Amino acid sequence: MTEVEAKKPQESLQDRLSQVVELLHRHKLVEDLTHRQEGHHQDRVENLVHRQNLVELQRKLDELHPADIAHILEALPLDDRLTVWQLVKAERDGDILLEVSDAVRETLIADMEDHELLAAARDMDADELADLAPELPRDVVLELMESLDAQQRERVRSALSYDEDQVGALMDFEMVTIRDDVSLEVVLRYLRRLKELPGHTDKLFVVDYDGVLKGVLPIKRLLVNDPDRKVVDVMANDPVSFHPDEDAYEAAQAFERYDLVSAPVVDKGGKLIGRLTIDEMVDLIREESESEVLNMAGLREEEDIFASVWKSLRNRWSWLAINLITAFLASRVIGLFEGSIERLVALAALMPIVAGIGGNSGNQTITMIVRALALDQVSTGNTARLLRKELAVSLINGVVWGGVIGLVAYTLYDSWSLGVVMTAAMTLNLLLAALMGVLIPMTLIRLGKDPAMGASVMITAMTDSGGFFIFLGLATLFLL
Amino acid sequence: MTEVEAKKPQESLQDRLSQVVELLHRHKLVEDLTHRQEGHHQDRVENLVHRQNLVELQRKLDELHPADIAHILEALPLDDRLTVWQLVKAERDGDILLEVSDAVRETLIADMEDHELLAAARDMDADELADLAPELPRDVVLELMESLDAQQRERVRSALSYDEDQVGALMDFEMVTIRDDVSLEVVLRYLRRLKELPGHTDKLFVVDYDGVLKGVLPIKRLLVNDPDRKVVDVMANDPVSFHPDEDAYEAAQAFERYDLVSAPVVDKGGKLIGRLTIDEMVDLIREESESEVLNMAGLREEEDIFASVWKSLRNRWSWLAINLITAFLASRVIGLFEGSIERLVALAALMPIVAGIGGNSGNQTITMIVRALALDQVSTGNTARLLRKELAVSLINGVVWGGVIGLVAYTLYDSWSLGVVMTAAMTLNLLLAALMGVLIPMTLIRLGKDPAMGASVMITAMTDSGGFFIFLGLATLFLL
Repeated sequence: MTEVEAKKPQESLQDRLSQVVELLHRHKLVEDLTHRQEGHHQDRVENLVHRQNLVELQRKLDELHPADIAHILEALPLDDRLTVWQLVKAERDGDILLEVSDAVRETLIADMEDHELLAAARDMDADELADLAPELPRDVVLELMESLDAQQRERVRSALSYDEDQVGALMDFEMVTIRDDVSLEVVLRYLRRLKELPGHTDKLFVVDYDGVLKGVLPIKRLLVNDPDRKVVDVMANDPVSFHPDEDAYEAAQAFERYDLVSAPVVDKGGKLIGRLTIDEMVDLIREESESEVLNMAGLREEEDIFASVWKSLRNRWSWLAINLITAFLASRVIGLFEGSIERLVALAALMPIVAGIGGNSGNQTITMIVRALALDQVSTGNTARLLRKELAVSLINGVVWGGVIGLVAYTLYDSWSLGVVMTAAMTLNLLLAALMGVLIPMTLIRLGKDPAMGASVMITAMTDSGGFFIFLGLATLFLL
Repeated sequence: MTEVEAKKPQESLQDRLSQVVELLHRHKLVEDLTHRQEGHHQDRVENLVHRQNLVELQRKLDELHPADIAHILEALPLDDRLTVWQLVKAERDGDILLEVSDAVRETLIADMEDHELLAAARDMDADELADLAPELPRDVVLELMESLDAQQRERVRSALSYDEDQVGALMDFEMVTIRDDVSLEVVLRYLRRLKELPGHTDKLFVVDYDGVLKGVLPIKRLLVNDPDRKVVDVMANDPVSFHPDEDAYEAAQAFERYDLVSAPVVDKGGKLIGRLTIDEMVDLIREESESEVLNMAGLREEEDIFASVWKSLRNRWSWLAINLITAFLASRVIGLFEGSIERLVALAALMPIVAGIGGNSGNQTITMIVRALALDQVSTGNTARLLRKELAVSLINGVVWGGVIGLVAYTLYDSWSLGVVMTAAMTLNLLLAALMGVLIPMTLIRLGKDPAMGASVMITAMTDSGGFFIFLGLATLFLL
């Protein structure tokens, strides 16, 4: 799409959001008053009385960068969001659609007519179209595809053929290619003829006549070297490059490690087919970290905070249902020991301490391990050592904090043996928490699953059932 | 430091890590055998028998990019890490120290002599020195400062004067500045004389004779415009710029939103004093997301996964201690109802279900809210609406899943009234979870605290104590 220069922000994003919200509220207040007087509902945007407020709001929106409007749309509840969306100038629709989160994009697209969608998508590049296509109505996509030339259509199709976590789905096609046998002077003249360079052009791609990548010419080198020198003498021969079927997140990590701004994507034969840029990679790094947080808490996916109640329910039900089963199992473990509890009711009051602290400690361990796995710091060679360390930490925590809580139990119920059982149960449950905190994510990754998936629910299930069983079991053996 | 070209990775990072680990193991195996035969300990590196293995390992390491070596160091336990560290060529020490995580850097610096540290830091830029200085021994820092010229020393001092979460601590000083009254041809010739451009130079900074920023000249425009044109006619007048005391994470978000590669930092008078680059911002985005995950789980800070047991304990104790208190409180809530449990022991088996599912649901809500707060999507204007939505989700979850579990309770204990109490308690506790899941992070942020801080521990504390109280209270009122 057209590139928009970001202007110096005179005010923070929060300020701008507040201003828009205030204008919206003023607009709604007038609306409410009018309705009450008129006694019947009128179409919002049509109503003359609001026009002035809307004009002011529109002026405010026109000043803002598409990314800022996207942010504001994400922070607004659905009805306000659509009011703002209708005020945004049609020619900016495309840019904004590309910036908003998937969840919010869905709500915006649902509010647009087919012809508006076609207009918004008209100026998009192939990679942007491919990005949007899965969420567009089928006939809009068909009409868009028909309007493209053969090369563009091929590119969209190719981008759509990759999974969204593959490099191929994220690459763009805005590459400036040059030959290696020309002088830098010729390259400089060629660039001048292009009138405009794609965003994030920090290097030019050097290809042979078959389109095979031979190297890259960093702009930095182009600028500091003698214009009479040949490209072949100045270019970097062996740049970091990616294949379209590589994992996109690994590419993002490579961008981060090697401080890249752009990088070529080549096919198996070494032919240049696209490029990756840092802006896409930054988005990916952010999304990956977010989905880690969400998955650990048992949320299936990114959730628009103003999503409908029904959507929120669907997002949360799968893990809540699993939690229901694990909680039921923990309850049955206690059920096994109902006789013991009847004889010593203090057990009922003390058992959640054992379970709860085990859960917290297990969550600490599993969070650490999931993070280390995400950063590729764990290999099969060091699992045993990691486990030993976590067990050692748990043992000490168990003895120290278990000792404290044992002392508390003694003070409360005046029974030394109850205190000792409490300490022993805490220690054993913390060891269980460490063991499971290491083994659950490791096992998930070996099964090819996301190690963060529901990590918190699973570890808590283990430490609950385990904690109840250990504590009540020990108590039954030694106290009754 | 010197810039290192990243080479095309022929093998994945995991492969390279495995190779190094294998070479290390082979090395240690030989060592063990030798020790057993000789019957006494010899210094590892001195031992002739190992030399061959070490040479191979060293060759492997020499091929790797400093960022890859940093990654391998992070993934190795302390003793292996130091073995590898000693094999790394001295001239690469500095680059690698700048790449590793803080926790690992500490272990590496502790292993270095003062003169090694001085050598490693010799070629660093002012911003890199400032980055490293807090972890270096005091006399090394003093000696380094003495070796700098006045301008460099001033820059290090200025960078050190900012908090690590301020823009001033992250900016570098490698700016190419130009005047606005010269032609692009002159700029091109000037750049050629520089021989080398700083990394991430996507724009040149246009300043007046007092050093006040007047605009930026994107390299893209420099390349496509007629060399006879003047800078003033081509430059962007009003670029995104930052102040050194701004919040660095907000700057990172601006980089992400506006797809920036570099941006100027100016003082209050508009004078150019440094620049920010995307590589630092990416690191920041990553760190911020990580600390969110860690804080939610009640881990104080980033933890080297092979940190000593003692360090791990310190990192985890503060929240475990808090958890101990909250668990004790929950236990006392149950203690209040010991009489009821004695009369109806089924309560003891059922109560953890109410508490557990409340905890899980509360964790889902609080995770959502903490994320939305981190993304600036929540403002005071929409709190009430968010709360309503979360309460509605909880109400439905409570009625549906509470109903299921009520039915289960009826089946198990053959008591309709117990089932109804169970459903009611689940619903109320889920409502409490939603309320607290929204209010806890909102309150923390209003108090100027990190909303993720121990979020998981706190919400679980609420839903445990609350769940026990609600369930046992209702049971006491209606069943006994």
